[in-house]
Amino acid sequence: MISQYGEHLHEKNNVLTEKGFSNRLNTDTRINAKGRDERITAVESVTGKKINFLNGRHALNDLSLLEGNIENYIGMTSVPTGVIGPVLVTGIDAHGEFYVPLATSEGALVASFHRGAKACYLAGGASAVCTNEAVQRCPVFKFENLAALGGFLAWLFPNIDGFSDIVAQNSRYAKLLDVKANIEGNHLTLVFDYQTGDASGQNMVTLCTDAICRYIMEHSPVKPLSWYVEGNFSGDKKATAVSFTHVRGKKVTAEIALPKQVVADVLKTTPQAIADYWCASTIGAIQSGAIGAQGHYANGLAALFLATGQDVACVAEAATGITRMECGATGDLYASITLPNLIVGTVGGGTGLPTQRECLEMMDCYGPGKANKFAEICAAVLLAGELSIAAALAAGHFSAAHKNLGRKTQ
Amino acid sequence: MISQYGEHLHEKNNVLTEKGFSNRLNTDTRINAKGRDERITAVESVTGKKINFLNGRHALNDLSLLEGNIENYIGMTSVPTGVIGPVLVTGIDAHGEFYVPLATSEGALVASFHRGAKACYLAGGASAVCTNEAVQRCPVFKFENLAALGGFLAWLFPNIDGFSDIVAQNSRYAKLLDVKANIEGNHLTLVFDYQTGDASGQNMVTLCTDAICRYIMEHSPVKPLSWYVEGNFSGDKKATAVSFTHVRGKKVTAEIALPKQVVADVLKTTPQAIADYWCASTIGAIQSGAIGAQGHYANGLAALFLATGQDVACVAEAATGITRMECGATGDLYASITLPNLIVGTVGGGTGLPTQRECLEMMDCYGPGKANKFAEICAAVLLAGELSIAAALAAGHFSAAHKNLGRKTQ
Amino acid sequence: MISQYGEHLHEKNNVLTEKGFSNRLNTDTRINAKGRDERITAVESVTGKKINFLNGRHALNDLSLLEGNIENYIGMTSVPTGVIGPVLVTGIDAHGEFYVPLATSEGALVASFHRGAKACYLAGGASAVCTNEAVQRCPVFKFENLAALGGFLAWLFPNIDGFSDIVAQNSRYAKLLDVKANIEGNHLTLVFDYQTGDASGQNMVTLCTDAICRYIMEHSPVKPLSWYVEGNFSGDKKATAVSFTHVRGKKVTAEIALPKQVVADVLKTTPQAIADYWCASTIGAIQSGAIGAQGHYANGLAALFLATGQDVACVAEAATGITRMECGATGDLYASITLPNLIVGTVGGGTGLPTQRECLEMMDCYGPGKANKFAEICAAVLLAGELSIAAALAAGHFSAAHKNLGRKTQ
Amino acid sequence: MISQYGEHLHEKNNVLTEKGFSNRLNTDTRINAKGRDERITAVESVTGKKINFLNGRHALNDLSLLEGNIENYIGMTSVPTGVIGPVLVTGIDAHGEFYVPLATSEGALVASFHRGAKACYLAGGASAVCTNEAVQRCPVFKFENLAALGGFLAWLFPNIDGFSDIVAQNSRYAKLLDVKANIEGNHLTLVFDYQTGDASGQNMVTLCTDAICRYIMEHSPVKPLSWYVEGNFSGDKKATAVSFTHVRGKKVTAEIALPKQVVADVLKTTPQAIADYWCASTIGAIQSGAIGAQGHYANGLAALFLATGQDVACVAEAATGITRMECGATGDLYASITLPNLIVGTVGGGTGLPTQRECLEMMDCYGPGKANKFAEICAAVLLAGELSIAAALAAGHFSAAHKNLGRKTQ
Repeated sequence: MISQYGEHLHEKNNVLTEKGFSNRLNTDTRINAKGRDERITAVESVTGKKINFLNGRHALNDLSLLEGNIENYIGMTSVPTGVIGPVLVTGIDAHGEFYVPLATSEGALVASFHRGAKACYLAGGASAVCTNEAVQRCPVFKFENLAALGGFLAWLFPNIDGFSDIVAQNSRYAKLLDVKANIEGNHLTLVFDYQTGDASGQNMVTLCTDAICRYIMEHSPVKPLSWYVEGNFSGDKKATAVSFTHVRGKKVTAEIALPKQVVADVLKTTPQAIADYWCASTIGAIQSGAIGAQGHYANGLAALFLATGQDVACVAEAATGITRMECGATGDLYASITLPNLIVGTVGGGTGLPTQRECLEMMDCYGPGKANKFAEICAAVLLAGELSIAAALAAGHFSAAHKNLGRKTQ
Repeated sequence: MISQYGEHLHEKNNVLTEKGFSNRLNTDTRINAKGRDERITAVESVTGKKINFLNGRHALNDLSLLEGNIENYIGMTSVPTGVIGPVLVTGIDAHGEFYVPLATSEGALVASFHRGAKACYLAGGASAVCTNEAVQRCPVFKFENLAALGGFLAWLFPNIDGFSDIVAQNSRYAKLLDVKANIEGNHLTLVFDYQTGDASGQNMVTLCTDAICRYIMEHSPVKPLSWYVEGNFSGDKKATAVSFTHVRGKKVTAEIALPKQVVADVLKTTPQAIADYWCASTIGAIQSGAIGAQGHYANGLAALFLATGQDVACVAEAATGITRMECGATGDLYASITLPNLIVGTVGGGTGLPTQRECLEMMDCYGPGKANKFAEICAAVLLAGELSIAAALAAGHFSAAHKNLGRKTQ
Repeated sequence: MISQYGEHLHEKNNVLTEKGFSNRLNTDTRINAKGRDERITAVESVTGKKINFLNGRHALNDLSLLEGNIENYIGMTSVPTGVIGPVLVTGIDAHGEFYVPLATSEGALVASFHRGAKACYLAGGASAVCTNEAVQRCPVFKFENLAALGGFLAWLFPNIDGFSDIVAQNSRYAKLLDVKANIEGNHLTLVFDYQTGDASGQNMVTLCTDAICRYIMEHSPVKPLSWYVEGNFSGDKKATAVSFTHVRGKKVTAEIALPKQVVADVLKTTPQAIADYWCASTIGAIQSGAIGAQGHYANGLAALFLATGQDVACVAEAATGITRMECGATGDLYASITLPNLIVGTVGGGTGLPTQRECLEMMDCYGPGKANKFAEICAAVLLAGELSIAAALAAGHFSAAHKNLGRKTQ
Repeated sequence: MISQYGEHLHEKNNVLTEKGFSNRLNTDTRINAKGRDERITAVESVTGKKINFLNGRHALNDLSLLEGNIENYIGMTSVPTGVIGPVLVTGIDAHGEFYVPLATSEGALVASFHRGAKACYLAGGASAVCTNEAVQRCPVFKFENLAALGGFLAWLFPNIDGFSDIVAQNSRYAKLLDVKANIEGNHLTLVFDYQTGDASGQNMVTLCTDAICRYIMEHSPVKPLSWYVEGNFSGDKKATAVSFTHVRGKKVTAEIALPKQVVADVLKTTPQAIADYWCASTIGAIQSGAIGAQGHYANGLAALFLATGQDVACVAEAATGITRMECGATGDLYASITLPNLIVGTVGGGTGLPTQRECLEMMDCYGPGKANKFAEICAAVLLAGELSIAAALAAGHFSAAHKNLGRKTQ
């Protein structure tokens, strides 16, 4: 809980002075087996876990590992994967240094996030906190008219407390947090908010809500003309204002205060120049009719989600939020990001696939009890990405970076 | 061009009666090497190209293939990949039957899209047309005041025609289509619309715009106080109203008329039930404050983008659009989808990576001259996905499908 | 409450058969004193209240009546005002027939709403229900960092219960319904939801929230760097997704089932034609990036707000919502509207001004205890307006109506 | 045109030093006949036109003046009206000092805008420029399928040039600027952009578009299944992303640079405090899912529209835009507003009604050739309003102002 976060403040300041950054990871942008192996070794030494699938030492022989993940199977798509870090995080659940895998085919992406991570590291690391969590399923019921809908609600409201039992019978992990009624003419949408443990949880909430709806249909004295387990209100797989202004998955915020010198040394510009760019780009985002205002969350999210077995389609909803950058009275740069729809899990979905599991284990984020930790790391990584791109655009280096690191296909 | 599309109509009707669907592809949802190999063989026989990386016969030995795609390389993330089809398409550039690879870890996704493809096949295939195309880069210039901005524009407008030469000097593929001025106080955003050949083109338009801006800075008698090559207005990697209402990448629309019998046989429900669900779900989308109104474009796009080496982060912008489903006077189901922000390429980016290239080749969509064709196939696939999910929700089968095909982690 | 609405159903059916519509009001569109006086007499006879200011019989002599409504006074703007009805409503608080004043200078507006009211009347009248209510004030607090913000919340949460006492000391009418915390980096927005009795309540919630904030500043052990009583989150005087998806003022929904014959006789078209138009126009609204999807709520709201002393600037926020029109299996037309941001009052603001008070009294909606009733009437009127314009557009009569009734200035 | 605006700059600087502000207008907030008459006299002396209806000296006797503005007439709604100024404007069409009438019943509104106008006056007046103009009408055509739609377009595109003649036959003022095609499945929306002279123009564009559509229906070899003269895409009477990002009516921007001393003397705070508030409030607007980001345009627009006979319902669309406030390196405050949807006219609609005409004449804005001038004055007034409210919120005076000047009904 954010209200217990105050105690982490002092702790954070201790971390800063003891460490270096650049000598940890071999960060050559040229690609060869030696560099790869040195990085793998560096990462393995941190976690004590072996990396074998990612670098091709082990092949996938037991296809039954893929059951529940795919149909009409024809093979495995291979996506280039790089590593950044150490990403230094002070969160409620994530503490310390993390090597973060990013899977992408977009040149310059990994280098850019790595640069941002370095700036944050030298400034003592990013703060990151989960401030809210819920996954929704939103069935819709259609009635003959408002009077029938009213009669249905008269039965429903006193019965809501019992729905938690139905949830408990259908899932070990799901907990029903809240039920809200949304009336539009003779349509009633019920918004079910769930906690889903360490799973991203979309299937879990579908099954539980389906069970509740079937109970309702059986017991309510007023029957709807029709109903659907999802009325396209939940924001599943799409950017929506409702999810952006509430929460879907986890709501996480991260911040950093970057000293002027770090901005100059690592980001090659000034806090004021970045703050000025931020202002112009936020006005640009408002003019474009975006949901929220941010730079390129989608780049970091897609690469992180892909490497770690998240549902990559959820980039559609997760890549909304607010980035803020200000030059304070002291001349330092304050930067924060807020991600209201970070829908991630460390169990289920694709998290147990061979390379994906290895990537989660790199950050000690595989399995139960790790989802909040992983969410905080995600936020710290995206903050690094926002800083790096803003600096590149503020300093006029954006084009050059893509020219140098991207593919030569102009 | 859509205005030449009329001639394709008759052609389409010929296709329908000659073929079957279900005997083409071994579609067992259980995963084993035999099924995989049978499917691979079926697909190879269509295109005459060998599939070797996807199914693990060949390993990636030459790491230099990855240059320009990744930094700090540690290995390859492996993502389960299935195939659907034949997807039958009548487009301007895409004609005939296609086997479409989808990379995902979400159980039921491939099966659901395959079901939709079957319904479309039996109805004669989907129509699909690219109706517009442009990729934007939007530099912003800040002036002392409106008067200075006005003076700058007085110089700029007569000079715009010359910018095409600058573009030609910086890219073999990019063509400048349009330049628009957007004034907000002392900020001037210039919206550059480009055609980018068969590349998705984001880097190309950055380099060209950067060159134009540097020319402007050198020659304009009125200098801005500052400028940035991108003012966060272009909609790059984010869902925006501007991109949704104009175009980003390609704007594609696809449609199908499904006879009542096909809906009953394949989708297990009726046209009226689907149309009713569509109406409720569209109201749900409006209530949720989504950009556009659709079901789950992101699922199909993420899986397609991933398999074919597109920039997966672009799911953020591509997963907006409009799905429409109506029960006509004849009792058949009319369904269409419109994707205004389908930013795809068949050259550059990750398209040349080993498995990605194989996946594009499966559809004869690798290399120059194939981007519009690929875009039309994408639209037909997403239409299939919209039909399948709407039918599942309308018929009350959505939860059961996920229970049966998804991972067992409730 | 909507859950008690079921009992109103039977009541409603009794109303229909006893009355006529067209013989109640002299509805000549030509303007003369005789017609005006006949209408005034008809309306006076319903309420037993005299109308003297509106028709110019009484002049405003006591300027002190305007204290608190205006500064730098130079006189009174005069706006033409017409009447429609009877508007037949079956609500929780509004029951029966109402003559509704509309102030506007837009020709055809009053005639169009009157036509819609007639169709609803002949169908037994509209159902209308307030389903939610709240007015927001949203102070924002800025902290040094997330840790300080966390410390502040640790103090705040246990103290929220006491805020109701502060509210009670500052307003006789305001009641604090809920307080929500919204964290964005080192910014904390508190969302205060109030009930404001029968006043629209914007000033009331400002004063109460200001008092709470001053209490907080005095007592919290962690002080913010700065704070503002409103952080531009409340949706005051603007269309926002947050207000649209929650509630601002009152959330009201209204519906009607129009028999085929009424549609033919009064609206000169068919239920199917209207439903088809609705579908196309809703897709148009989605494509336009509107908040919600409706036809012309603003026309009815501006005219109603102006006549009755509401804050006309609130049209900006109130004119969002959802209109739905469907042709059912029986061939009748179902239509509903939902207005989530109907911010109205029957006390305070401009409600006590001479003509405004007369207009509220026409509907027996002046003073305490009448706000919900007035809100239900508003919804019934807007429903009439939506039906009339949809019918005109569906039947191709829209242009002709404006040509005949509007000003001759082409 | 903005590109000719540079020459106005020097002119502007001459204006500042010669004049005072506060001795022009008796600005007592107490309401009495003496103050009213003094203000009327001051305003009359500027324009040389008599004000007789507004202050009640003349009564409306000739009801035929109202023809085309109202049906079912019952009288005139009277709205309190105040005056602010002088508002000092340097525009393309508006030059010099203006006394601006505001009709409202919201206490503190007039005083607040007057305060903002004073600050701008002492800083040399606001710059204001119309940067774009167009009014839309957007018919939608439905076809059997995409092929038919393509065939229709094949006929349409070569025929678009001839549409200007149809427009000329139907309106003396309307000019067709552009026609764009928007395809969504088998729906085709045509976006017609018009110039409408000095009228707001909504009826004019309806009649012209209707005539074009009837021509199309008669001559096109491919007939649509159905068509509507407006497909709810034009943004008429509603806030939409399309209108916000393009233009509806006039797009106007205004700016001011306020010296630190003026901010201190008039606005009782500092440039930095206002800039800080602006940043927080813009983040608040983004979080709220508003279209654009501004403070309270609707307040100024509703009061201006009402006083001057504009269509008050258009507040729904006009009250979107972007306000920006920055503290520059010199320590002064830069502020700008941008209004993309300012739909106003100085002929037609309610502009010729007795008090409305007087209010337009106060600003020498009645009749042909005045619409751009009026639009620039509107922008300058709204800029004043944004400054005043931001200052009040930044300084913590917002609540007190409403307590002192508003009605006493807590």
